[in-house]
Amino acid sequence: MAKMLLPIFFIFSFLFSSSNALDFCVADLTAPQGPAGYSCKKPEVVTTDDFVFSGLATAGNISNLIKAAVTPAFDAQFPGVNGLGISMARLDFAVGGVVPMHTHPGASEILVIIKGTISAGFVSSANKVYFKTLKTGDIMVFPKGLLHFQINAGQTQALAYVSFSSPSPGLQILDFALFGNDLPSDIIEETTFLDDAQVKKLKGVLGGTG
Amino acid sequence: MAKMLLPIFFIFSFLFSSSNALDFCVADLTAPQGPAGYSCKKPEVVTTDDFVFSGLATAGNISNLIKAAVTPAFDAQFPGVNGLGISMARLDFAVGGVVPMHTHPGASEILVIIKGTISAGFVSSANKVYFKTLKTGDIMVFPKGLLHFQINAGQTQALAYVSFSSPSPGLQILDFALFGNDLPSDIIEETTFLDDAQVKKLKGVLGGTG
Amino acid sequence: MAKMLLPIFFIFSFLFSSSNALDFCVADLTAPQGPAGYSCKKPEVVTTDDFVFSGLATAGNISNLIKAAVTPAFDAQFPGVNGLGISMARLDFAVGGVVPMHTHPGASEILVIIKGTISAGFVSSANKVYFKTLKTGDIMVFPKGLLHFQINAGQTQALAYVSFSSPSPGLQILDFALFGNDLPSDIIEETTFLDDAQVKKLKGVLGGTG
Amino acid sequence: MAKMLLPIFFIFSFLFSSSNALDFCVADLTAPQGPAGYSCKKPEVVTTDDFVFSGLATAGNISNLIKAAVTPAFDAQFPGVNGLGISMARLDFAVGGVVPMHTHPGASEILVIIKGTISAGFVSSANKVYFKTLKTGDIMVFPKGLLHFQINAGQTQALAYVSFSSPSPGLQILDFALFGNDLPSDIIEETTFLDDAQVKKLKGVLGGTG
Amino acid sequence: MAKMLLPIFFIFSFLFSSSNALDFCVADLTAPQGPAGYSCKKPEVVTTDDFVFSGLATAGNISNLIKAAVTPAFDAQFPGVNGLGISMARLDFAVGGVVPMHTHPGASEILVIIKGTISAGFVSSANKVYFKTLKTGDIMVFPKGLLHFQINAGQTQALAYVSFSSPSPGLQILDFALFGNDLPSDIIEETTFLDDAQVKKLKGVLGGTG
Amino acid sequence: MAKMLLPIFFIFSFLFSSSNALDFCVADLTAPQGPAGYSCKKPEVVTTDDFVFSGLATAGNISNLIKAAVTPAFDAQFPGVNGLGISMARLDFAVGGVVPMHTHPGASEILVIIKGTISAGFVSSANKVYFKTLKTGDIMVFPKGLLHFQINAGQTQALAYVSFSSPSPGLQILDFALFGNDLPSDIIEETTFLDDAQVKKLKGVLGGTG
Repeated sequence: MAKMLLPIFFIFSFLFSSSNALDFCVADLTAPQGPAGYSCKKPEVVTTDDFVFSGLATAGNISNLIKAAVTPAFDAQFPGVNGLGISMARLDFAVGGVVPMHTHPGASEILVIIKGTISAGFVSSANKVYFKTLKTGDIMVFPKGLLHFQINAGQTQALAYVSFSSPSPGLQILDFALFGNDLPSDIIEETTFLDDAQVKKLKGVLGGTG
Repeated sequence: MAKMLLPIFFIFSFLFSSSNALDFCVADLTAPQGPAGYSCKKPEVVTTDDFVFSGLATAGNISNLIKAAVTPAFDAQFPGVNGLGISMARLDFAVGGVVPMHTHPGASEILVIIKGTISAGFVSSANKVYFKTLKTGDIMVFPKGLLHFQINAGQTQALAYVSFSSPSPGLQILDFALFGNDLPSDIIEETTFLDDAQVKKLKGVLGGTG
Repeated sequence: MAKMLLPIFFIFSFLFSSSNALDFCVADLTAPQGPAGYSCKKPEVVTTDDFVFSGLATAGNISNLIKAAVTPAFDAQFPGVNGLGISMARLDFAVGGVVPMHTHPGASEILVIIKGTISAGFVSSANKVYFKTLKTGDIMVFPKGLLHFQINAGQTQALAYVSFSSPSPGLQILDFALFGNDLPSDIIEETTFLDDAQVKKLKGVLGGTG
Repeated sequence: MAKMLLPIFFIFSFLFSSSNALDFCVADLTAPQGPAGYSCKKPEVVTTDDFVFSGLATAGNISNLIKAAVTPAFDAQFPGVNGLGISMARLDFAVGGVVPMHTHPGASEILVIIKGTISAGFVSSANKVYFKTLKTGDIMVFPKGLLHFQINAGQTQALAYVSFSSPSPGLQILDFALFGNDLPSDIIEETTFLDDAQVKKLKGVLGGTG
Repeated sequence: MAKMLLPIFFIFSFLFSSSNALDFCVADLTAPQGPAGYSCKKPEVVTTDDFVFSGLATAGNISNLIKAAVTPAFDAQFPGVNGLGISMARLDFAVGGVVPMHTHPGASEILVIIKGTISAGFVSSANKVYFKTLKTGDIMVFPKGLLHFQINAGQTQALAYVSFSSPSPGLQILDFALFGNDLPSDIIEETTFLDDAQVKKLKGVLGGTG
Repeated sequence: MAKMLLPIFFIFSFLFSSSNALDFCVADLTAPQGPAGYSCKKPEVVTTDDFVFSGLATAGNISNLIKAAVTPAFDAQFPGVNGLGISMARLDFAVGGVVPMHTHPGASEILVIIKGTISAGFVSSANKVYFKTLKTGDIMVFPKGLLHFQINAGQTQALAYVSFSSPSPGLQILDFALFGNDLPSDIIEETTFLDDAQVKKLKGVLGGTG
């Protein structure tokens, strides 16, 4: 019977080699990038390892002032997610750790608490605060493009994973956007109503000039 | 000959009444809203006036502390844009006027200077500043979700129109998001590194509590 | 100074009440649903709890034959994700547990291993198998619509969280689709080449008729 | 063994009832419509007949001046396609039949010739003509929104089916848009450079006023 | 008068050469491919023949065990559909012919019966079967990503055309995905509950290893 | 304190260099183009000037027969809008100026009147005319793909800016599509019902052949 069925294989086989293009599009980080993402690696050189990433298996370095670390698995780190509408990151918190106020310009985020207790919140366009202390196992969703933050609210280290509705969500951290570049102090002051002393203090800390 | 051609009309006429649904979808602001926008008014009650809006024809009130006014023509004000992927707003500036640091979580923006001289800028996820003083007639594009601002850089009133790549771009003004609601001061300080005095001063000004 | 700045609030306040529509669209599960998702709850009744879900905090019941449980946080369970392009689920595995061969017709999936060792794989349109044993902390992505599975490959319970690129990814489990409904046995046999005895055995097990 | 496997069913059964929402969204033509399409019928009242349409099985009436008929299976006629990104229509041609110059504002079109010989063409934004006489079995694609037409080029009746990349492609027939409504003649003449006599002649034929 | 109107041409001519880019994007199969499809051929080398395909005009070879053939006109075969959101395929059936259980991970499908009688069905995420015998001229829609099949239900050859809501719908045939590659037999058995003898029998037939 | 905070910078700095890819995608007009737009310039060579365009600051040449000019700022002219879902154009009108009947196959349009009085209208798929005379400051929206036009209705020059819901909206001017290329006269006459003399007259004027 095997002999009789074999022609099936040949009938469909050309479909198999030609139609798989957009099952996935593992990023070729060296080729041109367009508005929809990176160019695809040739399917014939794609292996299982392109779809697996171990870079989130170890904690980021939290021996810093925010006592926290964000480790991304976006398309630039994990090329297998290119074109698939999803990506991840790992959040590690020491006691007192904080992921500062930030936005992802291109994606919504969903967070699951693996260890510890985290206070998280976002602010809507309508200027309303959605803020809660989350326990292990809780999940929370942060709508696309809105300011949000996460704080270790417990007395132990905390760990969370976050997923994004894009392989390239972007990350704009408020303090770096304001104080970590050459945006002139007077422009910052005019557009944020912050005092000059406050601006200069944080510029000093974050390496800003101007 | 007219008599002979008339049957064309009847052949196609049922198409005409049935297929126009998604040419447009003028918002019925009283009906359920979904992720793609408002429900549509019945096509038979839609008139030309649904596609025209005069609310941007007069200057906003710039007798305020920022010496500027933003007048929106989003779907909530101009229901004709619902579902069409576009909307507008008018920016008026007195001398010294400023549209403070803000984002649109759901849209890119394109600005055209009608009168005056405006300094405008945005900051990328990579923390780089794109900032320029624009003359009358210049246009500038602000990518979706990024912090940006506009400042009257001249010695006269200024006027600009901005368009958005969504009928519902949203608007998150940084100072209101931080200081104009009940987000607790200690949370603001932890997540922005601002000093307590600075936070409390701006909360006082902008009506924030907590 | 507070008195002077107060007019800012009034200038922008109408924006704040009108432009927040599509920041988020928490599902009103009782209202009409459309191709883009559920209708939105009125923003004024939305609270923080709409964006937080605790249903994944406890393990699913794994005292069953597959020795595994899938607990979803899709829009129907977690209305806050409606319209946001993302959702989650929790996978619990006893020793020997298996999430059987299935697809999500509407989403890509990303999986992170929290505890244990899981063998996971998918098959592409080109009929190629991408299969690997993953350790704690590894992540793997499964492209939209392709057959895939997860198996506890270790000697302990295992736990994973999966996220999806849609609030409503769907879930089609192969065995239920084939053997758990009234699809006639002869049709199944003709379209899958399975033997009649095999089909009837699994129909018996899974409650299929016809 | 059947007894042992039965728990699988209960583990997954709540998924089955909750997660099927966006597999499909059969249009409820009486409920609110939004930018993404019609509201969905409740899944429990959907039957196979919602996904089958027999309205294209019989030829349209070609005893008219264009000697052709277009029979649509858009969402308004075939509610099962709502939300699925696809629809169809049937084209019947007598000898000499013509589907006049038209656009589909919301979809690309693909045509397959079932009987006869059809000359078909479209014009690009770059003003270039793509025009060819097609034989039975040939297919041709017409990009979204561009002017196109089909003409029976043979000496027998012709039949074609067309599919669209939207359940609601729209159909704007040039002559009806110009001459079959109350668009004033002087406006038509100014915006098309057509002579007054030509405009009035076609208005007479197509029932236009103004 | 012709002389007077000529300047119109020059005013608009630069638009014509610059703005046609995304009218269409005929695939350059040799250039990089991205998540949205293939790179475009330069517009100046595109001809009408890029939009016409004759590969569906002749029946596929049905002298095989499934007594059926699927002939695709996806982007890889018909580059003109790239970027246009649509594609086609031809289905030929001998008496007794079957297109086996399969999914298209990236598209909905619409089918029209040209000759004969075809029984077609799909299974939803909710595990419900939508199954019907279709006559010539009937059309049926199959929602994206769901398992479906078509069977010649008559005593003559049958012919159908299917269209897809993507230029690259993908095609995953269940038996090839399970039995036509190196997916280990024990993994198949664990994830499908099929018996070892059944798995090995079909692996033998379809060329599977492992 | 600056010294203590500095480690923040290093923790996040690799994010900043890797995750900015899709904040924006300034077109590299010399690299491959795909269905979603042009390839991106490398972020490190992008400057503020890529996001600013001065080509709309001066009036187009209106000394022509239509007494009007359309000056585009689409992706081909203004590469900064590539991938951002928005673009603009400037419309200048002498007294009596007309932007003739046309469509944008790929975008909705929103128009703001800066100077003068403009009569503007569009025709829906349902063959209904939406037509109004607009004053300075009025805005009007034109749904995607529908025939529309603008006419200077006043006794002075007029100026308007239009924005589009795509960086590459396309522009199909009816008269050029019909009479400005090699579309054979008999085909035009069959598909538009225009008289032969009318067709030949306009072909003569607009440089058409055939």
